[in-house]
Amino acid sequence: RIDGDRLWDSLMEMAKIGPGVAGGNNRQTLTDEDGEGRHLFRRWCEEAGLSMGVDRIGNMFARREGTDPDALPVYVGSHLDTQPTGGKYDGVLGVLGGLEIVRTLNDLDIRTKHPIVVVNWTNEEGTRFAPAMLASGVFAGRHELDWAYDRKDAKGKRFGDELERIGWKGDEEVGARKMHALFELHIEQGPILEAEGKDIGVVTHGQGLRWIECTITGKDSHTGSTPMNMRKNAGRGLALITELVHEIAMKNQPNAVGAIGHIDVYPNSRNVIPGKVVCTVDFRSHLPEKLHGMEAEFYERAPKLCEDIGVGFEAEVVGQFEPPAFDPGCVKAVRDAAERLGYSHMDIVSGAGHDACWINDVAPTAMVMCPCVDGLSHNEAEEISKDWATAGADVLFHAVVETAGV
Amino acid sequence: RIDGDRLWDSLMEMAKIGPGVAGGNNRQTLTDEDGEGRHLFRRWCEEAGLSMGVDRIGNMFARREGTDPDALPVYVGSHLDTQPTGGKYDGVLGVLGGLEIVRTLNDLDIRTKHPIVVVNWTNEEGTRFAPAMLASGVFAGRHELDWAYDRKDAKGKRFGDELERIGWKGDEEVGARKMHALFELHIEQGPILEAEGKDIGVVTHGQGLRWIECTITGKDSHTGSTPMNMRKNAGRGLALITELVHEIAMKNQPNAVGAIGHIDVYPNSRNVIPGKVVCTVDFRSHLPEKLHGMEAEFYERAPKLCEDIGVGFEAEVVGQFEPPAFDPGCVKAVRDAAERLGYSHMDIVSGAGHDACWINDVAPTAMVMCPCVDGLSHNEAEEISKDWATAGADVLFHAVVETAGV
Ligand SMILES: NC(=O)NCCC(=O)O
Ligand SMILES: NC(=O)NCCC(=O)O
Repeated sequence: RIDGDRLWDSLMEMAKIGPGVAGGNNRQTLTDEDGEGRHLFRRWCEEAGLSMGVDRIGNMFARREGTDPDALPVYVGSHLDTQPTGGKYDGVLGVLGGLEIVRTLNDLDIRTKHPIVVVNWTNEEGTRFAPAMLASGVFAGRHELDWAYDRKDAKGKRFGDELERIGWKGDEEVGARKMHALFELHIEQGPILEAEGKDIGVVTHGQGLRWIECTITGKDSHTGSTPMNMRKNAGRGLALITELVHEIAMKNQPNAVGAIGHIDVYPNSRNVIPGKVVCTVDFRSHLPEKLHGMEAEFYERAPKLCEDIGVGFEAEVVGQFEPPAFDPGCVKAVRDAAERLGYSHMDIVSGAGHDACWINDVAPTAMVMCPCVDGLSHNEAEEISKDWATAGADVLFHAVVETAGV
Repeated sequence: RIDGDRLWDSLMEMAKIGPGVAGGNNRQTLTDEDGEGRHLFRRWCEEAGLSMGVDRIGNMFARREGTDPDALPVYVGSHLDTQPTGGKYDGVLGVLGGLEIVRTLNDLDIRTKHPIVVVNWTNEEGTRFAPAMLASGVFAGRHELDWAYDRKDAKGKRFGDELERIGWKGDEEVGARKMHALFELHIEQGPILEAEGKDIGVVTHGQGLRWIECTITGKDSHTGSTPMNMRKNAGRGLALITELVHEIAMKNQPNAVGAIGHIDVYPNSRNVIPGKVVCTVDFRSHLPEKLHGMEAEFYERAPKLCEDIGVGFEAEVVGQFEPPAFDPGCVKAVRDAAERLGYSHMDIVSGAGHDACWINDVAPTAMVMCPCVDGLSHNEAEEISKDWATAGADVLFHAVVETAGV
C-alpha cells in the first residue's frame, strides 16, 4: 500500500506554489508559477532516483527503469497546471499519485519488468490557451506542434513563446515515446461517487466535447440616445444564446450538459450598447448521438435567434473530441485492483476531459477516480479527504504494478 | 459668423491625440492622452489671450474678460475625454466650439459685457470612473469632492491619484465660481435631427438616468462534470436580466430606453460555469413616471428571476439623476439664434446625460445640438459634417453673445 500521509504532504507542498485568493490555486499553464511547480516536481523525481526527459511542448517524463530492457514503459500521471481559480487536487493528485507509486516501489525495493514513467502534461486546463489537453493532444497526434505553439492567450501571448520564456521547452520529439499502457488518477469533479458512497470510480468512458466560440456582432452605440428600435445589442444575442444552450442541454437529460463559461463584451462600457460579444459554448455527452444532436440544434437555432434581433452570429469550433472508450484490459486492471484492495467502487463516465482521453488513441489507457466534496471542481473550494486520495493512489499503484509486471 | 474651417481643423488636430483603432478616439479620462489633450487646449486658449484656471477636480476654465467688472461670466463648453472606442466629436465639439466663439470675438474685436469662460469638464464619460459627469456633478454640489477622489477604475486605480498623476489637479475650490449662464453645444448622439432634416436641436429637457450595478452570484464549477440540476449559473442570471431590461424598456415606449453595457464574468474560463457576474443596467427617460416605473419593475422582478434559477441578486445604484428641464430664457436664446441665422431647428430632448444637466442646478443653462450621421455615437465611426458643426457653433456664438451682451 502507498503512504497516504506522504502523498498528502506533497499535495499540500505543491499547493503553496501559485496560491489562489480563496484557499485554492492559480497556477495557470506557462506562468512563472507553473515553472516553479515543475521545478519542485523535478526535484522530487530526482530525489526518487528518476531520470527526467522533457519534450518540445514541455511534457515532463520521469522514468524508473524496469528489469526488461525491451519492455515499453507503463505511464502514469496527469497535469500540474490549474484553473485561474482552481483547486489543489485537479490534475495534481494524478501526478503526485504517480510519484507516490514510485516512492512506494523504492521503499519496498520492488523492481517492475516494464519501466514506469511519471508524466506531467502541459496545459491540460485550456483556460489560458484553448483547447484543453493541448500537449497530450499533440502527443497523440490530434494537433500539430506548430499549431499548438501558435495558440494565443487573451493578452495575445503565444503558447510557444511562453513555453520558452519559462524555460521548459525540451528537446524530445513530441509523441515519439511508445507506451505499454497509461493510467491516470483524477478527482471525479462531479457528485456521483460521493452520492453513491463509493471510494473508487472505474472510468469506462469519457464525455465527448464541443467548444464553440461564438462571435455576436451588433453595433456599439449610445445607451441613452439610441432609440430602442435602432439598437443592435450584441448583449441580447448573448442572453438568447445562453438560454438556448441551457434549453438544449435540458432537453437531452440525462447524460448531457451545456453552458457558456467565457464571455468577452466589447467595448464593455456602462453607457455603450454592446457592439460585440465573444463567448464559448461548452456541450458534452458520452453519447455521440446526444453530442451531435445538441451541436446540430445549436447551429440551426442560434443564428436565427440572433438574426431576429438584428445581430450577426458566427461560430468556430475551438475544441472537440468524440467520447472516448477506455481500454477494456486497463479498465479491468483498475476494477480488479479496487476489488482486491476491498475498496467500494462503481463504473463511471468521466464528466471532464482528461489527458488520458487523448492518450487512449495511441496506447491502452484507463483512469481511476476518487470522490470530491459536493462534486465541486474548477473552484478554489475544491476538496477531497486524505482517505479518498489514499484509496485512489492505492488502486492506481496496484493497477500499474499489475500491468508493469514484477 | 464663426469660422467653420478653423473649428474643423481644431477638431481634427485634437483627434490626433489618443487615436482609436477604427478612426475614432480613445482618450479616456485621466489617462496620459487626456493630459496631452488638455495641454493642447491650454496652448490654444493662451494663444487666444485667455487666462486659465484649474480647480481641484481638474476642470479647466479659460477666461476672456468682459467690459463690466461686476458681471458674472457666461460659461460655454463641454468635455475633452472620450469613450474607450469613442468618436471625435462627442464633447470635443462643445469645448472647441466655445474656443471658436472666443477666436471669432477676437477676430471681430468684439468686447462682451460679461466675461466668457470656455470650460472643459473632467470625466464626463463615466466609463473609466463611474458615474458620468463626475466633475460637473461635484461642481454643482451633487457629489462630494472626496467621494469623487475615491472612485476606482476597473484596475483599482483611484480617481484622485490618477488626477494628480497626470498633473491636472488645480488649486481652485470646486464649485466656487458663479455663473451668469452656461451653454453647451453637443452632437445629438441620436438619429432624430438627421431624420427630421433639421440643422439645430434646441434642447428643452434631458433624460433622467439610473445606473444599477447588479451582482449575480452563482457557484463556479466544472462545465463538464457538474450535472445540470446542480448548477448555479450566474451567466443565466445575466441572460434573464438582459432580457428583462429590454422587455421593461419596450413596454415603456416611446420615451424610454434600457440596456446593459458593462458585463464582467468570473472566473471567465471556458470550462467553468460562471460563479459571478457584475453588470450595469442603464435605464433612461425624460418622463419621471416612466423612469421610476422602469426602476420599480426591475427591482421587483430581477431578484425573483435570479431566485428561480438558484442564483443570488444584489443591486446598487452607481449613477442617478432626475430629468432636467433647462432654463427657459437660455433655451429661448438658442431658439432665437437659430431662427435669426436661418437654420432649420426643432425642440428636442437630450438622450444622453451632459455636464449641462448638472450645471442646470446652479445656473441658467441650455444646450445646442447638431445632428450626427445615423445617430451613431459612443462608436469610433461617429461622424458629423462640417456644415453641421458650423451651424451648431454659429448658434452657440449668437446665443452666448446675446446673453453676454455687447
Ligand atoms: N479535468 C479537467 O478539468 N480538464 C479540463 C478540460 C475539461 O474542460 O474537461
Ligand atoms: N454625452 C454622453 O455621452 N455622456 C455620457 C453620459 C451618458 O451616458 O449619457
